[in-house]
Formats: sequence, structure tokens, C-alpha cells
Amino acid sequence: MATAGKVIKCKAAVAWEPNKPLVMEEIEVAPPEANEVRIKIVATGLCHTDLYHLFEGMHEQGFPAVLGHEGAGIVESVGPGVTEFQPGDKVIPLFIAQCGECRFCKSPKTNECEKGWAADNPDVMASPESRFTCKGKKVLQFMGTSTFSEYTVINQMAVAKIDPAAPLEKVCLLGCGICTGYGAAVNTAKVEPGSTCAVFGLGAVGLAAVMGCKSAGAERIIAVDINPEKFEKAKVLGATDFVNPKDHDKPISEVLAEMTNGGVDFSLECVGNVKVMRSALESCIPGWGVSVIVGWTDMEDFSARPVQLISGRTWKGSLFGGFKSKDGVPQMVKAYLDKKVKLDEFITHNMALEKVNDAIELMKEGKCIRTVLSVSPQ
Amino acid sequence: MATAGKVIKCKAAVAWEPNKPLVMEEIEVAPPEANEVRIKIVATGLCHTDLYHLFEGMHEQGFPAVLGHEGAGIVESVGPGVTEFQPGDKVIPLFIAQCGECRFCKSPKTNECEKGWAADNPDVMASPESRFTCKGKKVLQFMGTSTFSEYTVINQMAVAKIDPAAPLEKVCLLGCGICTGYGAAVNTAKVEPGSTCAVFGLGAVGLAAVMGCKSAGAERIIAVDINPEKFEKAKVLGATDFVNPKDHDKPISEVLAEMTNGGVDFSLECVGNVKVMRSALESCIPGWGVSVIVGWTDMEDFSARPVQLISGRTWKGSLFGGFKSKDGVPQMVKAYLDKKVKLDEFITHNMALEKVNDAIELMKEGKCIRTVLSVSPQ
Repeated sequence: MATAGKVIKCKAAVAWEPNKPLVMEEIEVAPPEANEVRIKIVATGLCHTDLYHLFEGMHEQGFPAVLGHEGAGIVESVGPGVTEFQPGDKVIPLFIAQCGECRFCKSPKTNECEKGWAADNPDVMASPESRFTCKGKKVLQFMGTSTFSEYTVINQMAVAKIDPAAPLEKVCLLGCGICTGYGAAVNTAKVEPGSTCAVFGLGAVGLAAVMGCKSAGAERIIAVDINPEKFEKAKVLGATDFVNPKDHDKPISEVLAEMTNGGVDFSLECVGNVKVMRSALESCIPGWGVSVIVGWTDMEDFSARPVQLISGRTWKGSLFGGFKSKDGVPQMVKAYLDKKVKLDEFITHNMALEKVNDAIELMKEGKCIRTVLSVSPQ
Repeated sequence: MATAGKVIKCKAAVAWEPNKPLVMEEIEVAPPEANEVRIKIVATGLCHTDLYHLFEGMHEQGFPAVLGHEGAGIVESVGPGVTEFQPGDKVIPLFIAQCGECRFCKSPKTNECEKGWAADNPDVMASPESRFTCKGKKVLQFMGTSTFSEYTVINQMAVAKIDPAAPLEKVCLLGCGICTGYGAAVNTAKVEPGSTCAVFGLGAVGLAAVMGCKSAGAERIIAVDINPEKFEKAKVLGATDFVNPKDHDKPISEVLAEMTNGGVDFSLECVGNVKVMRSALESCIPGWGVSVIVGWTDMEDFSARPVQLISGRTWKGSLFGGFKSKDGVPQMVKAYLDKKVKLDEFITHNMALEKVNDAIELMKEGKCIRTVLSVSPQ
């Protein structure tokens, strides 16, 4: 490649400060260092976690940054020591690393890894290191990925090589939301055939959780949202029952208990709201109900009465759907190509990266499931 | 028996009202009705849940009552339809029934049962039905058992027949505390060989949890209590490390994380304090740490930050150590007779039932592990 070993100047959407629109800028992307890969991002989804950083978390040391962590692209060049990737490989950046060597990577019980950006400073949601500069300033790589840029540089332990046949403008969604929801049902809750499930919140993550419940053989999947416009898509993905809490005077956990003879076997909270987390737990049947927190918030505590657990429920959480990232993402890409996992149904809007602020508005207003942004031509 | 079919007048310690000493009274105990067993209680432990009802829960409809739920005795007579028991059998009353027929009893995932006192009105901690009267008033059977009485009447689904060789003044402790703590480690947390565990609170339940961790093969068992006098007994039962939170300025979860390279694999909260529940969760390693709430309180919410679960911890609760009661108690009695489970080490005081208020004071002051009260001569 003509660009290998050189600084690339390219377009990126920069978050200069919290609570402000992103700004399209020309940034400089340094060449990959040892064990790093420079990637041309072709397409990226916009995920609620990008909005969380910009409008809720707003950690002052987390700016300026290039957001975006749900992308797919093509390797442009590799740094010294990289043997797994070569220019032209189709890849998905991973916001959880999989170094393969730490005690977490070696344990079958977790998909966490001691390496990667999160090991340094999780609050800031970026490593202090970055290969980006703009107007003479260092610009952080949000969640180690920064897919709202034509080019990004990532350590090879946080990059998944995928099937060359994969359409990048679809499979980019496997970089976060779809794996997160689907895996929370399949890997974390371990939904069982014939079971009854409830999914709270029908954004992309919740809809993917519905799909995961269906794939795991759930007999009944109750989709819960205060926006009934989401129910149609939930039905397409496998939901069998639909509940709008606004239609009921009593707590939603009581409504579900009545519908299910005492509560659901599995519930998944896909909103990121601590009150909904409690409702999801309380909607589970005592004895063996399992509730999984999938939605992200770090602003408040969640809570419940001890008896809710003492009576036999289990409360878990799920990060990236429990998938070991480098192993799981290529498998999910293959499942999509084999038509075992749906992705197209999640994409409600397509735009160019320049329109990212429009996409942010759509998400804030709850008017999209996923917007896919075109970043670079393939 | 000369008493079969007749009302028995006998001694019992009656809780006439919340927050008052118990009063030794003569009560009338009706003969057993269909499927019921009348039991002469020989010995009983005093458990913190008795104190909870009297001094904390204080549900106004839960009085007058005969407390006590950790007893052992001998069948005096049986009602119509009872074939499993006959007069002279040694038995332990069960505060969780095991009807054997409901969906909970048929599930291997839980030890709950849809029948028994808890099905009717768990807040009151007694069924509205009772075979006790005193001075013309109905007296409730606390947790369906009421072992602070020379005689009690219990449905056969809540009675365990035990080995005739069992010493009742020891194995009575298997009616609650020891099974609760031991089973929380073995059945609920499912402590693994070679693992690192922390037990918060070294009363009888916590000490039994230490014993359970040891029995499950834990390599390191960290005993945590603000009363260092408890450490010696914890060591006898298998604890390897001892931490007094009062000796540290930083949160106990940080102390344990430093001692264990990031946190323990399993933690058990055996206090019944919502702040300790949080500490126990936060003391677990992200990725796979499991924390179990064993201590009972229903006065306050427990809470934590969502990231504590999203990062891979699991929060569970345990009731009666997850033992299916009729199956598990005889097995634990056998384990004691086979010297695989310790009980004698838990008994710090022996008294007559008449001294029950002294036993209550000892427990309130944290000066006993277990007091065993002699109720009737064998």
C-alpha cells in the first residue's frame, strides 16, 4: 500500500467536548506500531454507548475523542510482529480484547481480558495512548476502537478477522449491539429450550436478545417496551407476547407473574435503567429465575430486597454478550452468512459519516433501531 | 400412646407481642389432623431468625406465636393418612416443606415448595392455621414449626425422619443454621476445589459456610468479622485467613482484592446486613466471582453499581442452603454421624427452655455461637 508506514490524513467525527455535536475534522492517523493494525473503516453503527459517553458519562478526561465502536473495515497496513493479519483482510474492531494469554482469556467462565484500553482507565473509556492527532492535539480512541474515522489503529489482540464474503455495511453491527443482546441470552442467561423469557427494552440490543432467546429454543418470549412501535420488529425476531407497561396500573412484574403463573424463567434488561433492572429481576419466578443486566449505566445503583435473591433468583450481568471477542465475532459473522442470525432487520437508516449528528438525534428520539454510517468506500 | 387423639397440655415459651420477653405458659396442643404429625420436641437451637421476628420484623399479625424452628424430637402420634411416620421416630421439623409433587419440588434447580406456611402469608412468618391455644386464644406456629414447645403439630411434608442413632441435642442444629450456611457454600455458590472464598460474618451460619467451603475443597477461606473472638472457631472449621474490617481504613473489598490478586472466587454474606451484602459482592473477582446472600433481612434494599454485575459477577441468594428439606436433612444427619460434618463445635451453651430469654440476650450480645435448649426429656 502506498500509505503503509506513513501518517494518513483522513476524515473523522471528533467529540471535542461533552454534550456538544460531533465535528467532522481532518485528523492524522500514525502508522501502526508493534503488534498493531491500521484499519480502513468502511461502515459503522451508532450505539447508545457512544451517546452515553457524550451526554451522560461525560468524563472530562475522556475528550477530545473519536467515538464509534461498532464498525467493520479492511486492514490497510500492519506493524512489526503482526502475522495474523495482512493488508486487505476484512476485520471487525473489538472493544474487548482477547489476548489469549491472561487468566481471564484462559478461563472458560468469562470473556474479559486483562489487556486492552479498559485495563488502564475504564472511567475515561479510552486508553491514554492514541495514534490520533488533530490540530496539534492528541485525540483519544474511544473504547480503543474509534470507528467514526476513516482510519484507526488497534492492537491485534482487539481485532477479529472475518469471512471475506461478509458485507461490511451489515456485519459492522456484530461489533457491539447484536452480539451483546444475542449473547446475553445465549451465553450469559443460558436460555433453555421450552423456557419463558422476558426482554425489557426493544432497541437493537433488546431485539437481539429476543433473537437469542428464540435461537436458544425459548417457547415464549415476552417483549416489553413503553414504545409499542417496537413490537412489530420484535415479532419478526421471535417475540410471542407484547407488553406496554403504560397499559397497566400495576407493576410490570405483577403483570408478567400473572401472565406466566408466577414469573418468567429468564429476563434480560436491555435499557440501562436501574428501575427497569429491578423490575426485570422481580419478574422472574422464585426458585430458579435468572435476570441479566445488559443495558449500561454507571450513574446510579441498582437495588432490590434481599428476599428477591434469597428466594432463589440469580442476578447476572453481561458484557458483549459473554462472547470471547476474537473467537465469537467471526462465528457470528458466519452465522449471519449462513442465515442463522439476522442483521438486516436491525438497520433502519443508512447515512454517510458526515450525518452522524443526525443519526445521534434519531437515536435520542428513539426513532431508529440502528443507523449504519458509511465511512470509507471499499 | 396414652396421649394419642387427645389434647396435650404442655409448656411452651410464648411470644405474646413484639419486642417483649417470651413467657413460659401452659398451652394446649390439639391432636394431629389428616397428614399431620405430633412431635415431642427434645431440643432446639435458638436462631437469629427467631430474634428477627421478635425484634425487627415485628409483624403485628404474627403474634401471639411460639417461636423456634431449629429443633429435633420424637413422633408422639400421627393423624389419618400418615404412613411415613410412626410414634417413636426421631424427626427434625422443617421450616421449608417438601411436598414432592409441586413444580418446585420436581425441579432440581430449587429447594422451594409451593406448599407449607410460607405459601400462605410469608410476611407474618406463620400460617393462619395452628394447633395451639393458650388462655383461650389461638397461638401461631412460627415458621410452621414452633420448637419452643414441648409438643408441636406439623404436616408430614415438613418433617424429616432421621437416623435413630442421632443425638437430638446436637442434630437439632441441622433444622436451620448449619444446613443454611453449609449448603449455601456447597449447593448455592457451588464452591470449587482450589478456589478462594470469603465468608462475611462468623455466627453459626457463617461458620457453617466456612465448613462448607472447606468440604467443597476451597484452598483459601478468608473469614471476615468485626469480632476477632470468632476467628479461633473459624480456624477450627477450616478458615485459613482472618480479616477484621476494623483493622483497615480502606473498604474491605479493596483489602480482599489485594490479598487475592483481584478478588475472591466465591463470597458468602452471613450477616443479614445490606451494606455487607454489597461488600461481599464487590470482594469478588470480576469475570466469574459469585456472591451469595445468606443472611436474612427484609427491612432494607441491597444495592450496587450495575458494572459490578456487568463485569461478570453473579449475585445469588440461598434459603436453607439450597437443601431440599426432607431429602437433605437426613443426609446431613448421616454426615454428622459419619464425622463428615461438625456440629458439637457450634454449641457454646446448653440451657433449659425456661431460660430462653437468657439465650436471647446472649445472642443479642454476640456472646454465643449456638445455645441449645432442652425442651422435653427423651
